[in-house]
Amino acid sequence: MTTVQTLGVYIEDAVSSYRFPAQPANLYDPLRYFMTLGGKRIRPALTIMAGDLFDIPKEESLPAALCIEFFHNFSLIHDDIMDAAPVRRGKPTIHTKWNNDIAILSGDVLFTEAYEQLTAYSDERLALLLSRFNNTAREVCEGQQMDMDFETAVHVTEEAYIEMIRLKTSVLLGCALEFGAILGRQSETTCQLLRDFGVQLGIAFQIQDDILDLYADPEKFGKQVGGDILSNKKTLLLLTAQRLASANNDSRVSGLLNMPADQQKIDTAKQLFEELGAVKQVKEIMNSYYQQALHALTELDVPAEIKQPLQQLSEFLMNRDL
Amino acid sequence: MTTVQTLGVYIEDAVSSYRFPAQPANLYDPLRYFMTLGGKRIRPALTIMAGDLFDIPKEESLPAALCIEFFHNFSLIHDDIMDAAPVRRGKPTIHTKWNNDIAILSGDVLFTEAYEQLTAYSDERLALLLSRFNNTAREVCEGQQMDMDFETAVHVTEEAYIEMIRLKTSVLLGCALEFGAILGRQSETTCQLLRDFGVQLGIAFQIQDDILDLYADPEKFGKQVGGDILSNKKTLLLLTAQRLASANNDSRVSGLLNMPADQQKIDTAKQLFEELGAVKQVKEIMNSYYQQALHALTELDVPAEIKQPLQQLSEFLMNRDL
Repeated sequence: MTTVQTLGVYIEDAVSSYRFPAQPANLYDPLRYFMTLGGKRIRPALTIMAGDLFDIPKEESLPAALCIEFFHNFSLIHDDIMDAAPVRRGKPTIHTKWNNDIAILSGDVLFTEAYEQLTAYSDERLALLLSRFNNTAREVCEGQQMDMDFETAVHVTEEAYIEMIRLKTSVLLGCALEFGAILGRQSETTCQLLRDFGVQLGIAFQIQDDILDLYADPEKFGKQVGGDILSNKKTLLLLTAQRLASANNDSRVSGLLNMPADQQKIDTAKQLFEELGAVKQVKEIMNSYYQQALHALTELDVPAEIKQPLQQLSEFLMNRDL
Repeated sequence: MTTVQTLGVYIEDAVSSYRFPAQPANLYDPLRYFMTLGGKRIRPALTIMAGDLFDIPKEESLPAALCIEFFHNFSLIHDDIMDAAPVRRGKPTIHTKWNNDIAILSGDVLFTEAYEQLTAYSDERLALLLSRFNNTAREVCEGQQMDMDFETAVHVTEEAYIEMIRLKTSVLLGCALEFGAILGRQSETTCQLLRDFGVQLGIAFQIQDDILDLYADPEKFGKQVGGDILSNKKTLLLLTAQRLASANNDSRVSGLLNMPADQQKIDTAKQLFEELGAVKQVKEIMNSYYQQALHALTELDVPAEIKQPLQQLSEFLMNRDL
């Protein structure tokens, strides 16, 4: 039985011992830097854990796991440019430490490095891995575009928001898990159930992130509480509050958005979203995705004790302080 | 027998009838726009022509050809951002018509679309296609980085310059041709000969481009003659002239670089590079690569009349007005 904790060291070791070419230094130094900034390495762990369900040794799953992790980091490097984000995991982003051109190009080569990992599987599994990975990569790009579009959109529905987070972040978790099933030469049904588990869990996790951004204990959260509302970011919480308020001709959410970006705005938002019932509704939606994830895991035709690490991981992910 | 001319319409039709998803429009509209800006479609034609050597129908080679063409366009989209190029094929570049973020992301999704084409080959050829494509994509990124590094480098050797153009532009021609051999299930020797033919021809073509930039007939050239020297771009011509001049303590090339960017600078360069013997040397190098390309084609174990279209294409490419 393999848990995400025991895998952490194994994956970190594989990532940090991965040898990018020495030259051109301006292309590969940024990758050597970025890939050692850490992160939870949840995605590659999911691939190895899913492979483990079908007795695939972690050494065999590793290239597929690295494919997912390299892709994830590629998307972070490019997203950081688009978001003009100065910092990632407490360190300067590539486009800040080097420049935009280098961040674009080193991201591109990391994307190729992700695909290169798949060549470890030159048998009949390759076509399926490649096809699923292409689909996922395309969807992640679509999700990022929707996210950028939403910044300037006048009206965003809650459904569109959930579709955005599904594409931008959740399908990659689904792909990470499905990779394990493909490596284990499992049926399409099994592949689909593991994919669903990952996608639904990812959506629930992301919604939880929206809630935590406003309601987390500042001591434990690790980043500024209230960042989303300070920048009027269209989170599920805000979109739900807007809908509930406008149904009652309640102008308090509009008023909130016009407040200056300070602690008072954060406090007002916390109270208002509770009063409107937005927090309750959003938690219900989050839980419904979490239940769907657990349901997919239950449906998976694998002995319960074998599935336990994935069950535990999903509990761990969904039990951050709420 | 298939010639590049007869293939032009076929490929253009396939590219223009390719259906990108409708949404998100900000992601796919730029690709619909960019992919119909035209271009010579030489690279996909090479794949189909190489496949034709081994009786692979053009319909079967088409996805591999589109993979190459999509990748080429992806690299143009991202290069245009890095080069801050406002115009491509007489039309605004994507980052100009939309913005940098959209150009980054639509480039990324086009890169995925290139890989998606390879899933048309789910048999034993896939692993080799994917592996060769990954290598090529990595090398193209490395070449682009070298090109950017050269802009600020104090000293660039002629060897380093040729290595840069090999990576940035020639390996993709080699890959386009090798794809045809892989589709035809040919030996590694045959794959290598076709790859060599493409790489050497690509280097010769690129060197010819450097010469034409200064010595072309302005009526026929289609873009401004002398653009490279006006911006002091380190072309093989300039690098060779610098070496020849410095060997004789001749300060005229340094003087040239300090001249204002006008017609007089262009005229001075033309005369000076001839006098120094740089043009002669660069033409010799170009011809040596061209001869190596033709030699690889000769070595290819395919009846001469079958190889004729590739022979004709290389003559066509190397007989621009010089």
